[in-house]
Amino acid sequence: MINFTIGPVQMDVETQKIGAQQIPYFRTPEFSAVMKENESLLCRMFDAPENSRVVFMTGSGTASMEGGVMNFFAHDDKVLVVNGGSFGHRFVELCQIHEIPFTEIHLEYGQPLTYDILKNFENQGYTGMLLQLCETSTGILYDMNMVGEFCKRNNIFLFVDAVSGFLADRFSMKEMHVNAAITGSQKALSLPPSMSFTVLDQEAQRRCVAKKVRSMYFNYADYLKNGERGQTPFTPAVATLLQLNDKLKRIAQNGGTLYYNNVMKQRAEYFRAKIKHLPFKMFTPENATSNCVTALSPVTQGVSAYRIFEVIKDEYGIWVCPNGGELAERVFRVGHIGNITEGEIDRLVAVFDDLQKRKLI
Amino acid sequence: MINFTIGPVQMDVETQKIGAQQIPYFRTPEFSAVMKENESLLCRMFDAPENSRVVFMTGSGTASMEGGVMNFFAHDDKVLVVNGGSFGHRFVELCQIHEIPFTEIHLEYGQPLTYDILKNFENQGYTGMLLQLCETSTGILYDMNMVGEFCKRNNIFLFVDAVSGFLADRFSMKEMHVNAAITGSQKALSLPPSMSFTVLDQEAQRRCVAKKVRSMYFNYADYLKNGERGQTPFTPAVATLLQLNDKLKRIAQNGGTLYYNNVMKQRAEYFRAKIKHLPFKMFTPENATSNCVTALSPVTQGVSAYRIFEVIKDEYGIWVCPNGGELAERVFRVGHIGNITEGEIDRLVAVFDDLQKRKLI
Repeated sequence: MINFTIGPVQMDVETQKIGAQQIPYFRTPEFSAVMKENESLLCRMFDAPENSRVVFMTGSGTASMEGGVMNFFAHDDKVLVVNGGSFGHRFVELCQIHEIPFTEIHLEYGQPLTYDILKNFENQGYTGMLLQLCETSTGILYDMNMVGEFCKRNNIFLFVDAVSGFLADRFSMKEMHVNAAITGSQKALSLPPSMSFTVLDQEAQRRCVAKKVRSMYFNYADYLKNGERGQTPFTPAVATLLQLNDKLKRIAQNGGTLYYNNVMKQRAEYFRAKIKHLPFKMFTPENATSNCVTALSPVTQGVSAYRIFEVIKDEYGIWVCPNGGELAERVFRVGHIGNITEGEIDRLVAVFDDLQKRKLI
Repeated sequence: MINFTIGPVQMDVETQKIGAQQIPYFRTPEFSAVMKENESLLCRMFDAPENSRVVFMTGSGTASMEGGVMNFFAHDDKVLVVNGGSFGHRFVELCQIHEIPFTEIHLEYGQPLTYDILKNFENQGYTGMLLQLCETSTGILYDMNMVGEFCKRNNIFLFVDAVSGFLADRFSMKEMHVNAAITGSQKALSLPPSMSFTVLDQEAQRRCVAKKVRSMYFNYADYLKNGERGQTPFTPAVATLLQLNDKLKRIAQNGGTLYYNNVMKQRAEYFRAKIKHLPFKMFTPENATSNCVTALSPVTQGVSAYRIFEVIKDEYGIWVCPNGGELAERVFRVGHIGNITEGEIDRLVAVFDDLQKRKLI
């Protein structure tokens, strides 16, 4: 099967090799050294301010979204949540569950966040802002420079879910004034799903230490304390952390995040150019779309996006990514992260052509 | 390195092979079928009552300990917690954090739970009980038949952390009147660390559905609902779940859990017989010790248990398992779970002999 989903994605051979190896015991100085290196490399790749730290969470990206909401915000905060899709909606639900006072900026699916919208929230006493870098459900990419400037001007704590955007799209905590940001193991890092990683600047760390969080598993103060000696409070996905170490070092050797941003940009552009003749409409404006994914709407009357996913899976041995919820019939997605070749993209385009011949799209 | 720790442990070749493979997209009927099979096999291996279900949690064993405390108990419960080591103590902390009224049965490290202790809590209005099957920090094995009878008599909801005991020690939810029990991927199942699994009887499920839990990641009602279609609410450690499927099927083919209990019993006995001449004292009574681990105290004056761990690691290429906290200098542990051969045990015993010659123990 060729995998064009947005996670888990196709891994590198080096990552697969580590997956075949026995897993070392981890309460050792040797493993602590690996973890300290992971922390330092992740901070560098998030372009995080000095003295930033990383919380290594065994759990999905949502675990770290929830951990962040619980550790960074309190009942006396007043936060802005951008809800432009399933993951933005998840932040809304998390604020509700944890009783963090919030205002929702509700965007239509695929609608960019503009200053025209954001300006209404200037000087309104907001203390926090939560949004995705890329809203994975539609591929919309938010203008993080604009958001960062807005947060800086308004002294707002900015928490970014960069789970699927990291490495695919330009991201800098320093330049974008981000206090804390997440990525996940199974996205552009192309490791097995199992872990998510939050990079925290000093203000984010201060909030974790000050907050008495009602959770053991999500007690970030405990993670930060254990992290000082390169450890986690609970048994982590050790193999994934070794694969992370290998991957981060390879990223550094290959030219860093900018090189990877560019690879994924070129790959996304290559794909988008190749499908212009097909009866699909890009669901988001091309200039506001992440490099990590292309969301497509079939334009032919009566063609179901979910059915396209099924036919391509069952008859051609390729996974594209279906949408859930109310977009299920209208939208499917093609991911550009992971170890994907041009030949594989050509193969997918040939499948689309075949579907068109068969009058299935 | 030979690995005698209690997790992550040495994996089977079959498990390693799956670790090297690409990971499939999981929101498919194909993966759902694997998950339904995982659920049914786990229920069978826990000897769970009919209509039991499984919560597949991406997270360490502690994640499922906390999830259980949050989902099964409420502020109007009155629970008994057996605290006989680090993991018992963790249940105490979890009840404190989540404000579940509790009474602690505090045992000395390595002290068995007897009816003489338990009888004081008959007819006292307790509604729940939490304990380990095997307290991994010392290897003490609790008399779960006695505990089960006590809970049944007193109409007490019994939640068992069988994280390290499952497969190593005899365990039956039906016979021991257990309502919910956990195991972890990196223990006797010998998979990579990343997931823990809770088997829930119908009463446990009822409590999850009734409880309005203040968490998204630990909302078990949501896991149960998604589980009906063989899915999880959030991206799980997909590779681990495929490795689980392969392992559970091999367990079933090889004679089931009783066969594995026996393998680990024989392995533990083999090791314990081989070290009788050495200056170590078993930390727990042999008739109340789990098959999963042997905790040893050096008897020679001035010999540090932690130093033994270090020397064996650095000079002989073997990991035994150090203890944390106040037992660190007094106790180290030798695990009997995972893919360990008699030859490897002989090698470890030879290392101990060598240490004795060198007057290091």
